[in-house]
Amino acid sequence: MLFKKVCVNLSSYFKIGLVPKKYSIIASVLDKPKIGELTEVKGWVKSLRIQKEFIFADVNDGSCAQKLQIIIPKNLDIDDTLTYGSSVHITGKLSKSPRGQLELLAENVTVLGKCVVLDGYPFNPRTIHPPEYIRQYLHLRSRTNYMAAVLRVRHAVTKHIHDYFSKNNFLNIHTPILTSNDCEGAGEVFKVQPENEETMKAMMQEGRNRDSVYFGAKTFLTVSGQLHLEAICRGMGDVYTLGPTFRAENSRSRLHLSEFYMLEAEIAFCDSIEKLQSFIEHFLKYLFVVTRNTNDADLYLIDKNNKAPSWLNKQFLTLTYDEARNILAAKGLDVSDEGINKEQELTLVDYCQAPVFIVQWPKNLKSFYMKESPLDSTKVDALDLLAPLTGEIVGGSLREDDYTKLEKKLPSDALKWYLELRKFGNIPTGGFGLGLERILQVLCNVPNIKDTLPFPRWPHNCDM
Amino acid sequence: MLFKKVCVNLSSYFKIGLVPKKYSIIASVLDKPKIGELTEVKGWVKSLRIQKEFIFADVNDGSCAQKLQIIIPKNLDIDDTLTYGSSVHITGKLSKSPRGQLELLAENVTVLGKCVVLDGYPFNPRTIHPPEYIRQYLHLRSRTNYMAAVLRVRHAVTKHIHDYFSKNNFLNIHTPILTSNDCEGAGEVFKVQPENEETMKAMMQEGRNRDSVYFGAKTFLTVSGQLHLEAICRGMGDVYTLGPTFRAENSRSRLHLSEFYMLEAEIAFCDSIEKLQSFIEHFLKYLFVVTRNTNDADLYLIDKNNKAPSWLNKQFLTLTYDEARNILAAKGLDVSDEGINKEQELTLVDYCQAPVFIVQWPKNLKSFYMKESPLDSTKVDALDLLAPLTGEIVGGSLREDDYTKLEKKLPSDALKWYLELRKFGNIPTGGFGLGLERILQVLCNVPNIKDTLPFPRWPHNCDM
Repeated sequence: MLFKKVCVNLSSYFKIGLVPKKYSIIASVLDKPKIGELTEVKGWVKSLRIQKEFIFADVNDGSCAQKLQIIIPKNLDIDDTLTYGSSVHITGKLSKSPRGQLELLAENVTVLGKCVVLDGYPFNPRTIHPPEYIRQYLHLRSRTNYMAAVLRVRHAVTKHIHDYFSKNNFLNIHTPILTSNDCEGAGEVFKVQPENEETMKAMMQEGRNRDSVYFGAKTFLTVSGQLHLEAICRGMGDVYTLGPTFRAENSRSRLHLSEFYMLEAEIAFCDSIEKLQSFIEHFLKYLFVVTRNTNDADLYLIDKNNKAPSWLNKQFLTLTYDEARNILAAKGLDVSDEGINKEQELTLVDYCQAPVFIVQWPKNLKSFYMKESPLDSTKVDALDLLAPLTGEIVGGSLREDDYTKLEKKLPSDALKWYLELRKFGNIPTGGFGLGLERILQVLCNVPNIKDTLPFPRWPHNCDM
Repeated sequence: MLFKKVCVNLSSYFKIGLVPKKYSIIASVLDKPKIGELTEVKGWVKSLRIQKEFIFADVNDGSCAQKLQIIIPKNLDIDDTLTYGSSVHITGKLSKSPRGQLELLAENVTVLGKCVVLDGYPFNPRTIHPPEYIRQYLHLRSRTNYMAAVLRVRHAVTKHIHDYFSKNNFLNIHTPILTSNDCEGAGEVFKVQPENEETMKAMMQEGRNRDSVYFGAKTFLTVSGQLHLEAICRGMGDVYTLGPTFRAENSRSRLHLSEFYMLEAEIAFCDSIEKLQSFIEHFLKYLFVVTRNTNDADLYLIDKNNKAPSWLNKQFLTLTYDEARNILAAKGLDVSDEGINKEQELTLVDYCQAPVFIVQWPKNLKSFYMKESPLDSTKVDALDLLAPLTGEIVGGSLREDDYTKLEKKLPSDALKWYLELRKFGNIPTGGFGLGLERILQVLCNVPNIKDTLPFPRWPHNCDM
């Protein structure tokens, strides 16, 4: 079914997906060592030991957690700027030590950039600096082994997510960052306007607030792409988005960020909460298993005691909200009108000895777009997934697809477009969202969420 | 080199990358038709012809450009809401018509959601609506064949970019949207602050401007992730980012958006402009060839006259800025002090009969971070790639890696962190950036950039 006019001949280009490189990355050298061959690597010196006849240097280039051991004969012409932290270009022959360790016997060592610790370099060799200390140096932070490993895992998780959804025929939709929808974030939003006063003056129209000059309406940073996803889902089927999301909360906890990444998916023709649950369970297990195997050395570097979570081999359980409340009541824990709190979430997970979906939520605890339960009109078909250590890690629901019911609950006229999605060729849909950084915390055992992304933003902190 | 404690057994989960689905997507039905088998599809009616004994319905579900022809015997029990635009669930047997066309002989037809055009549905069957008209209905726009095709191409291009860079060992770095760097956007930036006055009051500190209350510094939406990429590149090697970028310009042209996606890559140890050029040429050709083949039917739907660009089979050329100026002068076109304009760009491409890199730019025309040319200290090692139809499609440079030279050109103290990257373990790097929407315009022949993304934002327009 190829349209000849559009296609171009593949033979000459389809195989050019790999860009030729003159030197080798250390991940490849370790993966498929070519003993005895002349090898060229570039990277940074992570540690240095000077012995009688040789200098031993551990070099890493960011491509993997492991370092390549370089053996440098002292009679080689070596710059005295070869120190911890310096960048180097090394040529030599690969060999195996009597103990079976891979080594590069250097024939040429060039220092590309020196690193004088006394000149203000904040990190020291063979020292584990506390994360709070490292966080003060965001621009140099990826030079620490810990942060580099986290960023490799973040890359891998992102790639696995795109691969998984693509393979399952979900379209990646870039939902907008700027939005005039004002109702979903309960006030904790950032607003946006041009910095340049000239632009403001040129665009000003009579009677218009400064907030509305540029776009003609007050404009915010997105708190969720779900409503936009639903619009595309009703024209094209399964869709997802993975991108930045914002909260203007005054929270400095180890679980909150002002800018974070959210994965949201919307499943077309999804007409039961069970289908949604089984998708989420499948996806989460896949993501954890695949990443634990592609990035085992990184996870080990981040935390030597990181064990596969017990829930990977368990069927997730399901409780209704009322059942959950009864279980907690029997343990002397009363659920307030505001819903199940963090402590109670963890009690439930402990009681179940497995991750557990809480379903059938009271309408007043959940958002306007969630579908009224066919079993009980005071409830909605929503779910929270609770897991060990973190409590809630995923939230989702079926979406209200009854025009009249949704109309009654619509919080703002600005959302008439969302209501209208139900008027023409409507379909049942359901979806879920999860925070990428929270998933990384669980996967990597990273205590503070600020250490799961390269440039964290939180109150009073937006360096660089 | 697997760390046993970290790994989990793959056998049970590695193969579960595919989520089971009860119905078939039309792309799969057409790709591997199972003639004679009972098949279930769900989608939207794109056209309907009623004949003597049968109703012929073309159904599409967003998974591909093609429609599946459904043949519905009139004696079947059919709802009269089966119309153009309605959503349907159909079960039937696959067969081939005498002409070889694939058909589904319906045994059961259920209308999931009606679509009454007279109730205000803006699109009509067998009508090609102008893009300006369709753009008024952003929430329903993906239901048009044209927009659906563009969004599938956008998905594919995004996936190909991630695959290409991942395969070549580039790390995907999520550079921040919020930034306190204030110097790069030449004033055309958006600034950000919390909407909630309670939050503002609670966080206010004496002597602080409202702009700086939340983050402790004036905060903007990013205009480029390059400087952040450079920080990671100097710790981990090759990196890239693909994400939203912002300009607060008062421009309503067919080539400008207030929010758009930018691909930026930074190549470690890149010490010559030729290496950078050859990477860009390789990448662009790969992206165009692969997408033209994975999405041939979409490209054909968008524009039946879309032909493979002649430059796919040509070596790109290189001119210095001075050579380019001389060529233009010989044609009576004077280059002003502000550089080569769009008309002149296209003249050069026409003269070269191929895409052309312009290199060796005068220092004053380019950004502070570009590397001074070793051949001429009034020039920088920058490049623009000019292509037919669009003129410039890629901009890039080597980065100034000389601490003293960079210090002299640093535009703001807020960028001291950027200077410091050169102080410790520095390496030569080079990189480039390109706008995803511009690439989609060229690839798909889409005249207006607002039709290359799902929810365009431009002055006075931020609907939904």
